[in-house]
Amino acid sequence: MLYDDYLDAALQRLHDEGRYRTFIDIERKKGQFPHAVWTKDDGSQSPISVWCGNDYLGMGQNTAVLDAMHEAVDATGAGSGGTRNISGTTVYHKRLEAELADLHQKEAALIFTSAYIANDATLSTLPKLFPGMVILSDSLNHASMIEGIRRNGGDKRIFQHNNLDDLREQLVALPANCPKLIAFESIYSMDGDFAPIEAICDLADEFGALTYIDEVHAVGMYGPRGAGVAERDGLLDRIDIINGTLAKAYGVMGGYIATSAKMADAIRSYAPGFIFTTSLPPAVAAGAAASVAFLKTANDLREAHQAAAASLKIRLKALGLPIIDHGSHIVPVHVGDPVKCKLLSDRLLEDFGIYVQPINFPTVPRGTERLRFTPSPVHGAKEMDALVAAMDQLWSHCALNRADLTG
Amino acid sequence: MLYDDYLDAALQRLHDEGRYRTFIDIERKKGQFPHAVWTKDDGSQSPISVWCGNDYLGMGQNTAVLDAMHEAVDATGAGSGGTRNISGTTVYHKRLEAELADLHQKEAALIFTSAYIANDATLSTLPKLFPGMVILSDSLNHASMIEGIRRNGGDKRIFQHNNLDDLREQLVALPANCPKLIAFESIYSMDGDFAPIEAICDLADEFGALTYIDEVHAVGMYGPRGAGVAERDGLLDRIDIINGTLAKAYGVMGGYIATSAKMADAIRSYAPGFIFTTSLPPAVAAGAAASVAFLKTANDLREAHQAAAASLKIRLKALGLPIIDHGSHIVPVHVGDPVKCKLLSDRLLEDFGIYVQPINFPTVPRGTERLRFTPSPVHGAKEMDALVAAMDQLWSHCALNRADLTG
Repeated sequence: MLYDDYLDAALQRLHDEGRYRTFIDIERKKGQFPHAVWTKDDGSQSPISVWCGNDYLGMGQNTAVLDAMHEAVDATGAGSGGTRNISGTTVYHKRLEAELADLHQKEAALIFTSAYIANDATLSTLPKLFPGMVILSDSLNHASMIEGIRRNGGDKRIFQHNNLDDLREQLVALPANCPKLIAFESIYSMDGDFAPIEAICDLADEFGALTYIDEVHAVGMYGPRGAGVAERDGLLDRIDIINGTLAKAYGVMGGYIATSAKMADAIRSYAPGFIFTTSLPPAVAAGAAASVAFLKTANDLREAHQAAAASLKIRLKALGLPIIDHGSHIVPVHVGDPVKCKLLSDRLLEDFGIYVQPINFPTVPRGTERLRFTPSPVHGAKEMDALVAAMDQLWSHCALNRADLTG
Repeated sequence: MLYDDYLDAALQRLHDEGRYRTFIDIERKKGQFPHAVWTKDDGSQSPISVWCGNDYLGMGQNTAVLDAMHEAVDATGAGSGGTRNISGTTVYHKRLEAELADLHQKEAALIFTSAYIANDATLSTLPKLFPGMVILSDSLNHASMIEGIRRNGGDKRIFQHNNLDDLREQLVALPANCPKLIAFESIYSMDGDFAPIEAICDLADEFGALTYIDEVHAVGMYGPRGAGVAERDGLLDRIDIINGTLAKAYGVMGGYIATSAKMADAIRSYAPGFIFTTSLPPAVAAGAAASVAFLKTANDLREAHQAAAASLKIRLKALGLPIIDHGSHIVPVHVGDPVKCKLLSDRLLEDFGIYVQPINFPTVPRGTERLRFTPSPVHGAKEMDALVAAMDQLWSHCALNRADLTG
């Protein structure tokens, strides 16, 4: 067997399609976010500012979070030493789960090593608990949801993105007595658009379906206590299972679900991805709990975040750049060509010290390649001026289209 | 739909079968391993010693590891802030991967958020890279390997545990030109038995198969530099993909594969479980790298570990207790009854302050329920005396069988 030939072919496909990924090696500087050091392949270093991270509120350098991590390391050491069942449940894990259950006003929360595995493990386990369950899944759901829904060949229906008519049609076609789950996201991270959460919940009620919402790009950032868009819209009690992350706005690592005590107990007991893996390090759980607690009362940070996003959108639009704007904190700039998208990213990094990764197929559909900026409260006026000037210059250099601003 | 009825039924099944799990809430005390504090449901606390953790060498309290974690938190903050591709690759991740590639004498290593996801993501991605691949899988492989192999419905054959004749028969039956992978573990954690690694590699050569070994319960503990059983046996160059964990002997968190540069590049590029998840926190990567580096030269710890295991086995055998002994560091005591197994565990914890979780179905087959002790260099003579005395007393109290020591 010429195994290397297979690997060569698989890698060549990526190069041919212009979607071979090169990881940029960076180190953010605590207290100086978004500034970081870029270490190049030849070992030389350059200062850069990071414009594509998911630490949306800069909590990764928050003192309360870092203090909690240091304290846990000093008190109990590095790792947990076991799975949740075998010596790996600590006071830190219990406290974090209590903090999250309170955040979402649910009876219970269950933490996983990532929101990816929280989605994958939960969505693949639900059909075991509810035999014959059909999962209705939004067509733009995240890879981790798709993986969980597809695993074990469970029954599924894909409805068109945010399309209530299509969802209704598919619900009508299912037997009344079959268990159903509607799985969707509150904010879709590539376009930054919102789901019609209330209308989906209405359909779920009408057809007797459970609701599963992924709030990964919303927790910490929306709602009076940061519980997400469902909290902002007063819909927390209408969602059966909420999925969130501790690795984006909360700035640490890990994922979770918040749900009823009974549902959490069943998922905890039946999901291999929860049972058979070492629990989070106590220091990570401690840092995450501190971050969740901190953001429950940090509306100033949430407002500064939205203001930074709004400001960047206005300024890029004023230059005629094609911004995708659905009113969320995510700022995608449409390029529509994988080679130019990569070129823009390379030039921003090398000529201007601005780091934004190109987003190409398969993360987004071909022809919709984009740069995706994530402004935050740590991006000040100086950083934003530099970004806007660089984009203006490069947009002309690459001969990309601008909107007609006189119209 | 009466969804709660389904959940009640699922939970009742666990209670009926005596395998409903209750998590014990503990906090180990840094510098005083294996001593910990047990927080009970009523909030009261008791001192205990932990005898079932997987921090096999006590590295979770090693100063080099903790210093590296503190330093990384101070330098760069809490989380990485992104996926590996989008702002989540740091010098800490690169250093850890270089340390692991060197450990296993491979061209490359790839870190994942856990060894569970490393197995799941890698084994489910290989059939995408090698269309038509058949995976031959040992019948006692870990849940994470099974999940990866089953995902997407890839072609698989299960061979009887450690049975070379059965493996050969199954290889003979496959077409010569079909890509094949033999997936197995070096040490099976529930019995502590070793795979016949060299003979499996010989079969792989004969039939043109790739080899995939899970060394999760061996890395750090076996081999002159802690690279595992394959290193101990001089077989590193005969394994195509090595899976290991940073959460057991290395005392931190995370998992990895070590393999050729080309294979790592392809897995990195095609595995959703690698691509679409936030990377490890820099502090976790830094702590793990320090631990791997430390254990490369810590044969004294490895010897102390084996001595502790050997000593505990001798002492429990001398009492006539049915030890499962395959010469590894794992000390399973066969109970063979789920209720008595749970009772022994409860009594050890409540009456003696000794924490060892019962291992019942489905982690092990019914009728082979056991207590599984993990002695380590941090378990001193005092702790071992207490354990042996407690087991002696409880074994009589529970009227369990002893071997005839006069025979």
